[in-house]
Amino acid sequence: MFNEETRFDEPLRWAMVGGGRGSEIGYAHRSGAQRDGLFRLVAGAFDLDPARCRDFGTNLGLDPARCYADYRALFAAEARRADGIQAVSIATPNSTHYAIARAALETGLHVICEKPVTFRVSEAEELKRLACERNRVFGVMYGYSGFPMLHQAREMIRRGELGEIRIVNLQFAHGFHNTEIERYNPGAKWRMDPQVSGPSFVVGDLGTHTFFLAGMLTGLAVERLCCMRQSFVASRSPLEDNAHVMLQFRGGAVGTLWASAVNAGSTHQQKIRVVGEKASLEWWDEHPNQLRYEVQGQPVQILDRAMNYLYSEVPSIGANRIGAGHAEGFFESWANLYYRFALAMDAADRCDTATLDTLWYPGIDAGIDGVRLVECCVESADNEARWVQF
Amino acid sequence: MFNEETRFDEPLRWAMVGGGRGSEIGYAHRSGAQRDGLFRLVAGAFDLDPARCRDFGTNLGLDPARCYADYRALFAAEARRADGIQAVSIATPNSTHYAIARAALETGLHVICEKPVTFRVSEAEELKRLACERNRVFGVMYGYSGFPMLHQAREMIRRGELGEIRIVNLQFAHGFHNTEIERYNPGAKWRMDPQVSGPSFVVGDLGTHTFFLAGMLTGLAVERLCCMRQSFVASRSPLEDNAHVMLQFRGGAVGTLWASAVNAGSTHQQKIRVVGEKASLEWWDEHPNQLRYEVQGQPVQILDRAMNYLYSEVPSIGANRIGAGHAEGFFESWANLYYRFALAMDAADRCDTATLDTLWYPGIDAGIDGVRLVECCVESADNEARWVQF
Amino acid sequence: MFNEETRFDEPLRWAMVGGGRGSEIGYAHRSGAQRDGLFRLVAGAFDLDPARCRDFGTNLGLDPARCYADYRALFAAEARRADGIQAVSIATPNSTHYAIARAALETGLHVICEKPVTFRVSEAEELKRLACERNRVFGVMYGYSGFPMLHQAREMIRRGELGEIRIVNLQFAHGFHNTEIERYNPGAKWRMDPQVSGPSFVVGDLGTHTFFLAGMLTGLAVERLCCMRQSFVASRSPLEDNAHVMLQFRGGAVGTLWASAVNAGSTHQQKIRVVGEKASLEWWDEHPNQLRYEVQGQPVQILDRAMNYLYSEVPSIGANRIGAGHAEGFFESWANLYYRFALAMDAADRCDTATLDTLWYPGIDAGIDGVRLVECCVESADNEARWVQF
Amino acid sequence: MFNEETRFDEPLRWAMVGGGRGSEIGYAHRSGAQRDGLFRLVAGAFDLDPARCRDFGTNLGLDPARCYADYRALFAAEARRADGIQAVSIATPNSTHYAIARAALETGLHVICEKPVTFRVSEAEELKRLACERNRVFGVMYGYSGFPMLHQAREMIRRGELGEIRIVNLQFAHGFHNTEIERYNPGAKWRMDPQVSGPSFVVGDLGTHTFFLAGMLTGLAVERLCCMRQSFVASRSPLEDNAHVMLQFRGGAVGTLWASAVNAGSTHQQKIRVVGEKASLEWWDEHPNQLRYEVQGQPVQILDRAMNYLYSEVPSIGANRIGAGHAEGFFESWANLYYRFALAMDAADRCDTATLDTLWYPGIDAGIDGVRLVECCVESADNEARWVQF
Repeated sequence: MFNEETRFDEPLRWAMVGGGRGSEIGYAHRSGAQRDGLFRLVAGAFDLDPARCRDFGTNLGLDPARCYADYRALFAAEARRADGIQAVSIATPNSTHYAIARAALETGLHVICEKPVTFRVSEAEELKRLACERNRVFGVMYGYSGFPMLHQAREMIRRGELGEIRIVNLQFAHGFHNTEIERYNPGAKWRMDPQVSGPSFVVGDLGTHTFFLAGMLTGLAVERLCCMRQSFVASRSPLEDNAHVMLQFRGGAVGTLWASAVNAGSTHQQKIRVVGEKASLEWWDEHPNQLRYEVQGQPVQILDRAMNYLYSEVPSIGANRIGAGHAEGFFESWANLYYRFALAMDAADRCDTATLDTLWYPGIDAGIDGVRLVECCVESADNEARWVQF
Repeated sequence: MFNEETRFDEPLRWAMVGGGRGSEIGYAHRSGAQRDGLFRLVAGAFDLDPARCRDFGTNLGLDPARCYADYRALFAAEARRADGIQAVSIATPNSTHYAIARAALETGLHVICEKPVTFRVSEAEELKRLACERNRVFGVMYGYSGFPMLHQAREMIRRGELGEIRIVNLQFAHGFHNTEIERYNPGAKWRMDPQVSGPSFVVGDLGTHTFFLAGMLTGLAVERLCCMRQSFVASRSPLEDNAHVMLQFRGGAVGTLWASAVNAGSTHQQKIRVVGEKASLEWWDEHPNQLRYEVQGQPVQILDRAMNYLYSEVPSIGANRIGAGHAEGFFESWANLYYRFALAMDAADRCDTATLDTLWYPGIDAGIDGVRLVECCVESADNEARWVQF
Repeated sequence: MFNEETRFDEPLRWAMVGGGRGSEIGYAHRSGAQRDGLFRLVAGAFDLDPARCRDFGTNLGLDPARCYADYRALFAAEARRADGIQAVSIATPNSTHYAIARAALETGLHVICEKPVTFRVSEAEELKRLACERNRVFGVMYGYSGFPMLHQAREMIRRGELGEIRIVNLQFAHGFHNTEIERYNPGAKWRMDPQVSGPSFVVGDLGTHTFFLAGMLTGLAVERLCCMRQSFVASRSPLEDNAHVMLQFRGGAVGTLWASAVNAGSTHQQKIRVVGEKASLEWWDEHPNQLRYEVQGQPVQILDRAMNYLYSEVPSIGANRIGAGHAEGFFESWANLYYRFALAMDAADRCDTATLDTLWYPGIDAGIDGVRLVECCVESADNEARWVQF
Repeated sequence: MFNEETRFDEPLRWAMVGGGRGSEIGYAHRSGAQRDGLFRLVAGAFDLDPARCRDFGTNLGLDPARCYADYRALFAAEARRADGIQAVSIATPNSTHYAIARAALETGLHVICEKPVTFRVSEAEELKRLACERNRVFGVMYGYSGFPMLHQAREMIRRGELGEIRIVNLQFAHGFHNTEIERYNPGAKWRMDPQVSGPSFVVGDLGTHTFFLAGMLTGLAVERLCCMRQSFVASRSPLEDNAHVMLQFRGGAVGTLWASAVNAGSTHQQKIRVVGEKASLEWWDEHPNQLRYEVQGQPVQILDRAMNYLYSEVPSIGANRIGAGHAEGFFESWANLYYRFALAMDAADRCDTATLDTLWYPGIDAGIDGVRLVECCVESADNEARWVQF
């Protein structure tokens, strides 16, 4: 069972930029961060409209004085308080991530940022440099990576149970945008606007998630890739609502990635299959408590979360909050990640490099890789799907 | 999305009896209660050992003075405080539920109690009488009943989409006790002791859950039943580790219930299938975001949580915390129930009977029915599995 | 791979009674019997209408002179031919099985009969006596029992891999008769008529199948049972369209059986789950190439037909006609049974008792057990579902 | 139910080249061809070893005089007989298909040939020309295409139920060759030898199957493709044991194809997913009686074979041999194809072009397309996975 007694003398004082009323992702951040009592929401710039921000924040129980008109005001005012914020989560449209994250780091805050973290690799690398200089934690919200079964998979691969990895097939392909819903749905609209969303829609929004999981599980690095993308709803051009990518990893492994918002009739279909010399693993985010393990020449095995046969000695896997059979879900994954972010921030504040060196969490390097994926896919797709170096 | 902005001026001041260090169910109660900020844990009698109780409670952030040696001390001391507790959750072994719940009600507290609420129907009815007299909410922790897809199922049945209900097949059959694990596992040991667990193990521990769901979904009342029970691990006698029940409902419907702790190799297998004249519904707690809907003569349909085709106008179904495709789990179900408990307590405190009349939650009547199920099953099983009136 | 080169000098000369035009089960018999070339259809009394019988038989390529008006004419005329039939399959409504099978045995024919073989146990025992006296093979068409994965399951249980068997849960519950379709469907009509169908509809038609599989897999014998049955479509009374049975086996194992034709929305749902001390097995006839094997404390395993890890040395399992991954189906199961029937008949003709002693096939004892199941269920259900000795 | 009374005055006199003792595919051809009595095996050149051929053929019941040393002898001798063969099936290694098929056509025989039909497109086109000149049927053994649910899918697409097709994802990826099993397994060995197998292993052996299904279902034609292929078992070079293909179809649809023999732990995993503007369809050959139909915004639907809601008026779908719920399998698919081949041959012999014009079966055009797929994939893969025109 998860150790709910892990406590800091004081929870980390924490704010959000974005994620106000009506934002599903904002709720997910607050749920995740506050689940284990290691963060306390004390301030925010939730909304571009100051009155709406204040109304929303006070309804959450915040001091109205700490509901700010924008991130600049938030960072400036909090920096002047003795009890000012220590960390901030950024859940705004993509185009603003870089400036906000940069400002946060410059103010000395730990940062948790939605992906893709920037539009350009160079910007993401600048954030990394800043975080490093200031000794700040930079967490990237690859929210699926907190599921315990993925950490079991990672450990099985690390131990060589699959043998050398040969093939990694990735997909995150839902159908919710099969028609032009952005006409009526403002939450969807900005994702189709390259000024706000960046150079890609589905590769950035969906593909980066599963791409991150591939790296997390296998440790493989991409050497080159080739991408074709389409706007099946024509008005979305130049952004794609569907993309297929072929991947060649250093060392000889290969793979594919399918990101789509027009996979009609599907809800998520985020699936990852890793094929090794001896065995394969498959995981599906809609049924995240199971892991399919297929050893060649043996019966297919279905592993279940929290069973004793799992590798409980791996700390990252120990994050079970309830016994086997009970379904854990998306919110536990987020809480598990925020739990790690908190431990990392605490360790960074204490300059505890030993902890930092062993504590796994999705950090800025993962963020950079996601931006690079987008860059490379766009370059490939916009040049007749030619191969490009990663 | 779930409305996280529902707030009371002050969260309900809340305590726990039982559920201390190492208790999985204690963690589940605290997670569920505090998820939406409507309860705040301020006191507890978590453990029979006072020092351990205090250590555990202070690690959770409680005032050591409010970590009590036992429930009597808890209720007495808190009653003297201006900021004393308003509600208590009881997560102790079965044999103590009645006395603690009774004392809590007599002190004027709202109660949330684990099931089975008492050993005898007469005791449960006494609790109902008390709760009624004192105008207190008595919630029973049928923790699976907060899953949104069950409320969708309930509404479909209510609307007649299945036609008249004919058959209800129920099971909750795991395999974790296929050998005598209670020798080494103290958490399992008390469940095999009739002095502590009551007259039944698996019917009380597991069968009551799925039995409650049957009533919740269909509204059907049992007329008579017949039960056979076994102790496949002989040392458990007279308590059973496996039971099969045949049910006859008023009005002609029939059903079966299988409760087992020796279903080797299964994790949960809590499944409910309701068969109507025209269609059937099936739900499985290990994959709780889906509902299987089978209309005779049509393709099988699989409904997914949070999709627009669901009956969103039903308030009880509106409890989605994240969009479709994302897996919700056990903790959301518990939080949904605690959310309702809080609304009910608040309404009771305000004598808002309009709200109370329409607000669904598992209450003392459901608790009584669970105890009656145990009583009837034991009577049947101990008399050569003869039929008994419910 | 299946040995298609197994041949007799001459295929067995074979006839059918019943199973004429429009009969699905007639086609299944002919497909199964002729698949491996060990039977050749040479005569038949397919239809009560002589002209229709002749037309149907000649369309199948038979000599019109060997298309008979009824089974008496068939047996008498064929007995006078040097090249007369050696074996007959009976695929007529239940009420006629006994008389036809008796006449066939008296003429010296091997018999393959649909189930239930008779209305009364005493009649089935009489058939056994006759078959024994005349040294004739009496096969009963439990058509699902030829699936290789069931033989794998049987062998795993025999080897003790599940430990002592504790629980056997059986079901065969489709929804095709949820309304009174017999009004329009003559193929369904006779099954609701006790004069033709016998004292039971679904227990006899469906329950006997899965009940046979239970015995085949576990070798367990029922000690007593209790059955409730209903006619949800009232006009079917006194025959049931739904039945639930509780079973107690000699030695302490227990189980349930659900037979239904009103399980709205289901196609078959014939499932068998055997729970042992250490592990469980589950098989489903709609996906017959897989077997679910759940060892307590280990990942769930899914075994696939024709894989090398199966017990290939068991002859009964060796009946794979194509490699793993390719779906085998219902017709292979029937062909596998007819293959065994042919080997048994050939051995009986040669008085090769060594072969007969080791050759597994569903014989008259299985037929008797099925009739006894019906008798006991009816007795129980018609006496307020009281327990009856088997 | 399937019409077993469809008969010719005489079954087609039929022979096989290849497919002798130990050949799984040989058994599949004989099972499929003889299932409905429209073909009768009367001759063969089953084996390169004449004695073994004769022994094998006579064990199947053939006249030893019609068991020939090779295909030349077979065609020559049979052509001289009044009762000589009318059709031949070719189940030999790939390198021999062209010469044998050509000789068969030149002798005036109908041909059924394994895929890939030739090494080069030009050769396949030559076979087409010959078949056309001689008015002979040329069937290609895409053995999965006889499954009724695929014909249901095809009809749903044709009727526009999915809207315009956008994406077609294909895979046939088993794991049986994850290690160098060809060292010990002669049946596998020739597939790794480019002299015998042709320029490709898995694209030719597996990819052509699923590629054919894509065309059959959607009618889409490929415009260009890009392929990467690997020999994860190095000794297989230059032939690949894994390949990923990206496809662009005329009109804007896109897709992927994954063919693999090193997908460790998988048995078949032949799956096809067609995504349209409004809905998607998914089919899996290991559970071929189901079809998954996902309409955006509606519950997922699972269609079952032989249910009344299917499009029974489509002749190609009417090929049900048993009612819904009963599993049909691989052998029914093959028999359904041979049934069509027989009807086509009979129609060709009678110059009944009306029948030929409406009768669907996998013919030489499908064969040519498969060879073209191999050619294009090899050209792409061997040129750094560049895009090539189809």
